[in-house]
Amino acid sequence: MKDRKSARTKETIVRAARKIFSEHAYHTASIRMIGKEAGIEHPLINYYFPSKAELFDAIIREICEEFAASAGEWFDAIREREITEGFTEFIELLMEFNRHNPEPLRILALNLTQTKDFSLIPGYHRFPDLISRLHTLYVEKIKPMGPDQEIRMFLHSFYFLIISFLGAGPCIAQVQGMDPDGEPYREWMKATLLFIFLPRLKDINLPRAAAREDG
Amino acid sequence: MKDRKSARTKETIVRAARKIFSEHAYHTASIRMIGKEAGIEHPLINYYFPSKAELFDAIIREICEEFAASAGEWFDAIREREITEGFTEFIELLMEFNRHNPEPLRILALNLTQTKDFSLIPGYHRFPDLISRLHTLYVEKIKPMGPDQEIRMFLHSFYFLIISFLGAGPCIAQVQGMDPDGEPYREWMKATLLFIFLPRLKDINLPRAAAREDG
Repeated sequence: MKDRKSARTKETIVRAARKIFSEHAYHTASIRMIGKEAGIEHPLINYYFPSKAELFDAIIREICEEFAASAGEWFDAIREREITEGFTEFIELLMEFNRHNPEPLRILALNLTQTKDFSLIPGYHRFPDLISRLHTLYVEKIKPMGPDQEIRMFLHSFYFLIISFLGAGPCIAQVQGMDPDGEPYREWMKATLLFIFLPRLKDINLPRAAAREDG
Repeated sequence: MKDRKSARTKETIVRAARKIFSEHAYHTASIRMIGKEAGIEHPLINYYFPSKAELFDAIIREICEEFAASAGEWFDAIREREITEGFTEFIELLMEFNRHNPEPLRILALNLTQTKDFSLIPGYHRFPDLISRLHTLYVEKIKPMGPDQEIRMFLHSFYFLIISFLGAGPCIAQVQGMDPDGEPYREWMKATLLFIFLPRLKDINLPRAAAREDG
């Protein structure tokens, strides 16, 4: 009974922390804000998470797990599909994930730009790990035929652009004169990602032609 | 004499503000921080810039001007060049600009992700204007032959990825296991941007082939 209550309190803290960390960069978020959001006293939060750093690290670990698990499922869903169709489906799955669960990409986008003392942000070593895991998953499940160097350039550009498009949606949508939560912005993102990335996705996934004119 | 002193004080404030705003997002930067950086008393800053909003707006206006003016020169420099060569040169000019003047892209990157109340950030309407101006400049100077819709998708993806690569360099370089100020990261960015964007740059700049297989 006590354990169950304890688990529930911890869950409430984590939920509030995800919300606050998706609205404020690590350095400006505070345990006080999270306590207020959760309706839980400051000292009780410290009982479960002794420092803001530990709480943030727990959140980063959780969102990286969620994202990698989902990406694994998406790769499974598209592995047998024709490239254009599969890539379209992948983008739709990603946008749908973000619609129901916008916090992970927002937290990443918000903290990605903390240029000054990036190495001091706790848990941020998990971010390179996530990118590596996504790479490994892609290679294992999709079995692309291109050189590893090109696969890396492709995946990194795609993920960083996605983090901007979805994690910084309100700004980028406004540049398009669109509502970040509306269908036109989603259509614009999908069309843009397909337009930009499809040629190189074909290059890295399909057996090479004998000669390449660029690259 | 008094005018000259006044201009110098204003210039000192602007320089300090650019530094602070490139290290802290708008909502967390303060006139107090800027005063400390400039070695100028708070009330004197308010004499020149009555509010943080007005000072930020002045900085955003200035960095947008600088960026658009430079982009205009870069387009002039490459307009007669072969596409791959011209694009390589453009990326090099852009990276060189950022090396000597890193504040504009950092300020953009840092504030782009302020998702919550983006419309409340003063001067931020200048950002869509900048993207439009860059588009107009490109069309006037380079005279691309592709559909306007594709040119927009290309330019927006390119600029948003550049803002991440250069404005959030310390994080993205770390994902590559590189020093953000080192030559390997610059080489990686250049190779990646060429790899991802060259196929579509050829599409939007050159007369269309009779049939397109995707798009």
